[in-house]
Amino acid sequence: MKKHNFSAGPSILPQEVLLKASEAVIDYNNTGLSLIEISHRSKDFVDIMEKARALVLELLGLEGKGYKALFLQGGASTQFLMVAMNLLEKRAGYLNTGAWSEKAIKEAQMLDDIYQVASSKDANFNYIPKGYTIPEDYDYFHCTSNNTIVGTQLKSFPNSPIPMVCDMSSDIFSRQLDFSQFGIIYAGAQKNMGPAGTTLVVVKEDILGKVSRKIPSIMDYKKHIGSGSMLNTPPVFAVYTSMLTLEWLKGLGGIAAVEEENEKKARLMYSEIDLNPLFKGFAAKEDRSYMNATFTLENENLKETFESMLKEAGISGVNGHRSVGGYRASMYNALPIDSVKALVEVMSELESKA
Amino acid sequence: MKKHNFSAGPSILPQEVLLKASEAVIDYNNTGLSLIEISHRSKDFVDIMEKARALVLELLGLEGKGYKALFLQGGASTQFLMVAMNLLEKRAGYLNTGAWSEKAIKEAQMLDDIYQVASSKDANFNYIPKGYTIPEDYDYFHCTSNNTIVGTQLKSFPNSPIPMVCDMSSDIFSRQLDFSQFGIIYAGAQKNMGPAGTTLVVVKEDILGKVSRKIPSIMDYKKHIGSGSMLNTPPVFAVYTSMLTLEWLKGLGGIAAVEEENEKKARLMYSEIDLNPLFKGFAAKEDRSYMNATFTLENENLKETFESMLKEAGISGVNGHRSVGGYRASMYNALPIDSVKALVEVMSELESKA
Ligand SMILES: Cc1ncc(COP(=O)(O)O)c(C=O)c1O
Ligand SMILES: Cc1ncc(COP(=O)(O)O)c(C=O)c1O
Ligand SMILES: [Mg+2]
Ligand SMILES: [Mg+2]
Ligand SMILES: [Mg+2]
Ligand SMILES: [Mg+2]
Repeated sequence: MKKHNFSAGPSILPQEVLLKASEAVIDYNNTGLSLIEISHRSKDFVDIMEKARALVLELLGLEGKGYKALFLQGGASTQFLMVAMNLLEKRAGYLNTGAWSEKAIKEAQMLDDIYQVASSKDANFNYIPKGYTIPEDYDYFHCTSNNTIVGTQLKSFPNSPIPMVCDMSSDIFSRQLDFSQFGIIYAGAQKNMGPAGTTLVVVKEDILGKVSRKIPSIMDYKKHIGSGSMLNTPPVFAVYTSMLTLEWLKGLGGIAAVEEENEKKARLMYSEIDLNPLFKGFAAKEDRSYMNATFTLENENLKETFESMLKEAGISGVNGHRSVGGYRASMYNALPIDSVKALVEVMSELESKA
Repeated sequence: MKKHNFSAGPSILPQEVLLKASEAVIDYNNTGLSLIEISHRSKDFVDIMEKARALVLELLGLEGKGYKALFLQGGASTQFLMVAMNLLEKRAGYLNTGAWSEKAIKEAQMLDDIYQVASSKDANFNYIPKGYTIPEDYDYFHCTSNNTIVGTQLKSFPNSPIPMVCDMSSDIFSRQLDFSQFGIIYAGAQKNMGPAGTTLVVVKEDILGKVSRKIPSIMDYKKHIGSGSMLNTPPVFAVYTSMLTLEWLKGLGGIAAVEEENEKKARLMYSEIDLNPLFKGFAAKEDRSYMNATFTLENENLKETFESMLKEAGISGVNGHRSVGGYRASMYNALPIDSVKALVEVMSELESKA
């Protein structure tokens, strides 16, 4: 039986994507060769890469607006460094909303001066700071749109006077936004876009080329753009599977369609957390993430029962991150609402039992 | 029909590996979940990573000798930079044997001073320089064991007084060597080890920690070692498929067994190149690569006939690199000798026709 997969990442992908990806590992498109044993310079693969890059801009509404999409390696963690290498000249402003923001800050600090415009560390990151000012003489402003670990999400973005860089690793393609307000968007594929192994970077070209530091080739966005996202051998399988997921999303009706589904799933999940006296949400209500719902079970004695009921129902991946504890239900694009229904049912069954 | 796949990389993998990898994309080990949608922190994946890392050291004969194996992202090209970041303090010596060595040199030069101990650029890299001296007060010596583009290979390595770093992207696991003579070995997976998307790095731990520069976390071998090669989300599919290929190699009898096969394939290939008057080898005979045989067709008028005969015989991927021209037959571990026979047959048939 297929499980209800609430994993925080790597995480659930559409079943039809898995089937096509699996098929391509044996024989790609009746070529008599596996997708993973052909040259990345072959027409077959170049077409895949170009299609993936074009789908990104189309789905984000960024076509013809001066943006380029790149499929890189190294995870979002490598972007913590690349962003600073490519943009940091004097000083940058960071919004600190969780463990991932903190890592981004630490990595950028290796290179130069970083200023935290605001932080919610004082409350274990259970809310999103508001009302801060972004200094207009800084190089860029960095934020994390969705905080995967604590389950908070930026519902709106500041009007930034400098290029805004956003780590969207855990909510890219999940909701409609004016994506043209960002200078750089980056996201590890392994939540809403594909398998682990590739990182999407969407860059507004005109913000590049303004730092004096020598940028190593493999860290240079301009070089990656210049080579069509093939500066070196790309992670073929991860790019192909991402392309399939983007096609699936387009087929659904794009971000608008999936956003509607995501809202339904989140509403269902959070109503249960709120109404069920056994559970308590971790994040401040107004800042709750539609992707990762974090909650605790108030009565420790029910833990074992709850977890065996989850197992019984085929629900997997809901354990919370070690730094927060409790539970975390990740409800990415590919998670069917039926999985949320199954989880909510177990939670309410626990209530009737208790 | 399955083709004879001479692709230079990404390149042929064992059929049984492709089948198992394809299966895992649907359902890993009867878990009811795809390999690519489970947490990399799950026992299932941690076991895969640990097995892959252990197999590397076992196959290279490096167990208990102070080495650690890492599966990173970013390709061998990222290692050009990481090596320098982790080891370069004052000056490093590089052996320049081809386009890949040159790129390694250029990237390291971004950080500090590089000295070319020898180069074969004068002859379009068709030979391997010998008799050079490695200064003993340098930080490390870097070489490329196999030059994928031009088809040359180091048959022996210098007795280096300083840590020797080797890019083995295109011949790792293909021949027996005393691997303990190296301080760092790195290799993109996509030739002899697996699909594109992961890079093997084998590091002798005691050569690390000697530079004064601040190393960004994601570039720091020590940090990757400290986190068991899971500093951030690893490229799950590429690591698993590499692990399967390493298991396959162990099952064959390890490097000793595959080396014997590789020698047979190379002998067959080069005899045809030498004996057939229509073809001419590119590389100096004594430095010829057992992995990539480069050759030209002397008579341009036969090009079309030759290429349609190749196609007819189901032979793919033998076009030479644009910088060298002609043809390149890549004969990595997973290429069956029957494929070489098929190619040689076409070459000799061309001779009888001409
Ligand atoms: C918001 C966010 N940023 C960054 C990362 C790190 O991504 P990676 O492991 O691909 O480096 C994660 C991983 O979960 C994340 O959720
Ligand atoms: C010897 C050698 N080094 C480095 C590379 C670059 O590897 P990557 O594309 O994984 O960065 C290659 C690629 O073919 C290679 O053959
Ligand atoms: Mg977080
Ligand atoms: Mg409640
Ligand atoms: Mg070369
Ligand atoms: Mg000849």
